[in-house]
Amino acid sequence: MQARTPSESKTILTDLVLPSETNPLNNLFGGELLARMDRAASIAARRHSRRIVVTASVNHVAFNKMIPLGTVVTVEAKVSRAFKSSMEIYIDVWIEDRESGICSKANEAIYTFVAVDEQGTPVPVPQLIPETDQEKERFNAALRRKQLSLVLAGKMKPNDATELKALFT
Amino acid sequence: MQARTPSESKTILTDLVLPSETNPLNNLFGGELLARMDRAASIAARRHSRRIVVTASVNHVAFNKMIPLGTVVTVEAKVSRAFKSSMEIYIDVWIEDRESGICSKANEAIYTFVAVDEQGTPVPVPQLIPETDQEKERFNAALRRKQLSLVLAGKMKPNDATELKALFT
Amino acid sequence: MQARTPSESKTILTDLVLPSETNPLNNLFGGELLARMDRAASIAARRHSRRIVVTASVNHVAFNKMIPLGTVVTVEAKVSRAFKSSMEIYIDVWIEDRESGICSKANEAIYTFVAVDEQGTPVPVPQLIPETDQEKERFNAALRRKQLSLVLAGKMKPNDATELKALFT
Amino acid sequence: MQARTPSESKTILTDLVLPSETNPLNNLFGGELLARMDRAASIAARRHSRRIVVTASVNHVAFNKMIPLGTVVTVEAKVSRAFKSSMEIYIDVWIEDRESGICSKANEAIYTFVAVDEQGTPVPVPQLIPETDQEKERFNAALRRKQLSLVLAGKMKPNDATELKALFT
Amino acid sequence: MQARTPSESKTILTDLVLPSETNPLNNLFGGELLARMDRAASIAARRHSRRIVVTASVNHVAFNKMIPLGTVVTVEAKVSRAFKSSMEIYIDVWIEDRESGICSKANEAIYTFVAVDEQGTPVPVPQLIPETDQEKERFNAALRRKQLSLVLAGKMKPNDATELKALFT
Amino acid sequence: MQARTPSESKTILTDLVLPSETNPLNNLFGGELLARMDRAASIAARRHSRRIVVTASVNHVAFNKMIPLGTVVTVEAKVSRAFKSSMEIYIDVWIEDRESGICSKANEAIYTFVAVDEQGTPVPVPQLIPETDQEKERFNAALRRKQLSLVLAGKMKPNDATELKALFT
Repeated sequence: MQARTPSESKTILTDLVLPSETNPLNNLFGGELLARMDRAASIAARRHSRRIVVTASVNHVAFNKMIPLGTVVTVEAKVSRAFKSSMEIYIDVWIEDRESGICSKANEAIYTFVAVDEQGTPVPVPQLIPETDQEKERFNAALRRKQLSLVLAGKMKPNDATELKALFT
Repeated sequence: MQARTPSESKTILTDLVLPSETNPLNNLFGGELLARMDRAASIAARRHSRRIVVTASVNHVAFNKMIPLGTVVTVEAKVSRAFKSSMEIYIDVWIEDRESGICSKANEAIYTFVAVDEQGTPVPVPQLIPETDQEKERFNAALRRKQLSLVLAGKMKPNDATELKALFT
Repeated sequence: MQARTPSESKTILTDLVLPSETNPLNNLFGGELLARMDRAASIAARRHSRRIVVTASVNHVAFNKMIPLGTVVTVEAKVSRAFKSSMEIYIDVWIEDRESGICSKANEAIYTFVAVDEQGTPVPVPQLIPETDQEKERFNAALRRKQLSLVLAGKMKPNDATELKALFT
Repeated sequence: MQARTPSESKTILTDLVLPSETNPLNNLFGGELLARMDRAASIAARRHSRRIVVTASVNHVAFNKMIPLGTVVTVEAKVSRAFKSSMEIYIDVWIEDRESGICSKANEAIYTFVAVDEQGTPVPVPQLIPETDQEKERFNAALRRKQLSLVLAGKMKPNDATELKALFT
Repeated sequence: MQARTPSESKTILTDLVLPSETNPLNNLFGGELLARMDRAASIAARRHSRRIVVTASVNHVAFNKMIPLGTVVTVEAKVSRAFKSSMEIYIDVWIEDRESGICSKANEAIYTFVAVDEQGTPVPVPQLIPETDQEKERFNAALRRKQLSLVLAGKMKPNDATELKALFT
Repeated sequence: MQARTPSESKTILTDLVLPSETNPLNNLFGGELLARMDRAASIAARRHSRRIVVTASVNHVAFNKMIPLGTVVTVEAKVSRAFKSSMEIYIDVWIEDRESGICSKANEAIYTFVAVDEQGTPVPVPQLIPETDQEKERFNAALRRKQLSLVLAGKMKPNDATELKALFT
């Protein structure tokens, strides 16, 4: 399998905040944004693996800004690291001001997807070759995040999480 | 008002065909694709004008390919010509094959939007400066299309539609 | 196959403008109306052909009036001309004032559908016999529109579009 | 206020059974049909009263036939009797066979709506003048149904429900 | 088949009133509440029967309170009586005040479901053993309601509806 | 402000997997489950704080089981710890087998919500008093998770995250 770059899986989903997606303050529901990011991330994972993909996990997602009804929201997803059959997807969410046209960062999120065959059995995926500085940084941090998720799930002993342990010692 | 290029309004909406959007043959409903193109086009019109925009008309749209459930569909919208307060938006729709990763053209469509203020009154928009060959070609054809729509609406006499008339004589 | 009249395919879809169908100005999204007209037109095409039908194209549609949240909208679709396996559907959209009960025309649109078998292959459809004056007028104009769409798609030379050419010369 | 006939409030909502409205057996969810009938009935009530209307109650509704995905469903609603500020709406649901074009009755339902002002206070509505035999029959039965609903709600003593009592004695 | 108690089928569906479910007065649409109650009731019927279940009928439902956008609504459904293959489900709807936390009753409704096999043929269901006073009272009233629905459907003579007749004589 | 127990905020949302919520393998979309958990968690946060609440973050969520169309899914949310104006909500997701009636754990997730006033400014919330062993355990772990999220967001130095550091040293 030929390795791929992050730009080959880059997925852009620009859409409006629709009335059916808002909460009582007339802002985008956190849950709706999670669903929209999941769809964009699944397309990035599919472009990288050319396989059926299913959501495996969602890493820590912070909602820093309220996003009002009618806002143009751009969800940009790229594979940040490929493991054996799983892929970490890094998602950047941007909103833009209608009058000035200025874009600002609203969110970041990290999802993990697994490539599967028609029966749902995991299958191997191509490796990822990061190119830009940001892609390299995200690629390196991905290992630390994988260890963290294994530790939190009780599948790895904290002592074996060498990358993670280094943070605290 | 500063003129803008088509690339400044370029809007990409990549999303899956969801189960709630399919017809009895399990393909994307024509009507759902029209709605999705309308949202992408409205964002392009808004990026060009930085105003509230409303759909004014939809030009001839041909549905050449069936698009099955689960397909990744990319709707790409760019302003193709700006008039006084209306903008013609050219939309290209691409689908991609999961296994080969090959993209193919599924549709083209042309929508017209009008920029309005909070009361719904039309307001002027910046001019468009086409850059690529395709953008220039679409810019020129836009005038012909505008004449055609005026003739069909009975607001222009066929004899005055000079651009259009040239086609037939 | 027995020819049918337009009244045999007449389809009425009266429904409210729902909150999930509105744009930031609280009016019906152009795209949602396109989707609703597509469903009504597909039922008219199906009633005429008694076959599975798929959207083939949408002709020029003008959005002249804003339609606010809560409005009662009536979409009325009738087959206006039948060709070999395609059918032109004429759609009239009416809105009504709650207090006076007065109906006014909000839109007209023309869609084309193709009748297909289970494999998606086009199949022949019954001919249409127009009855009223309006039906006859729309029946005649349909040929002109078909030529126009063939010319625009590059499938017919302008010189061969005799009906259309007559308009300009 | 001028009395009106049932045909003045007649509302037709013909639409497809959409994929998002089906249950695990691929038939229209009972709950979705209830929602669709509620919208059609509210339009009939509004056409009769020319007021804002709200659902007051739903009478016994029987679901006799399963309605599969893709079926064309026609919901027809007419005011069957007007009281002081409430209106009884009779709803007939028809489905049609695609190949034969034959329509068959799928359901009947009866809803009650109340006309209100902007503050939600009930306001008087015009009286109803039934014309056809079926309309007259439904008009007469409506009083019996109203008594039944008052008895069941504990707001009328069974002995005072003269119309209803006559059924059993 | 082992008899079951109402608490074994008790189903709680607490959710917000979402923007796409509101009417022009910004309250929950009657039709949407009917759909939500149908889903909760179908789960209760399924928990009792452990079978596929389909909606057979909806008894009289009164809408006494308007339920505004953003309200927390709790739908609680329990089997109130089991017959041969049908089950009566009693549904209580509660809304809660955000500031005081006080819950109040908004609605009651009664639905009937039938248990079916994969072909849609009715199959027997376990009997119900009511436990609390309220459950016993609803169990007894269920027979009266069944007779009423048979009488209204013309499937039982008023004279044979002994439980019901007792009410009026 | 009076402290509250987790059982006072306990929120149960039992509902079916609907056709519009499934992915191409006919299982519940990860993104839809995220949205449903967000709604249940927001109600729990609101019941604890009696305030408007907005999603602040989503902690690591693992999707261990595929959940097919038609499954009954129970989302149970309880406040697990209250901080100054933020609340950690622990969510357990259960699915049940129709024939055996057996429930099994499908997911766990942790969301954080912030209580705000009408202007969106954070306001203080009551403290939480855990009662059961599981509630106490989750209460204690919540501090560790808060430190982790502060460290990951660069708002706390790893060395100051005493609870977390203890894990690795």
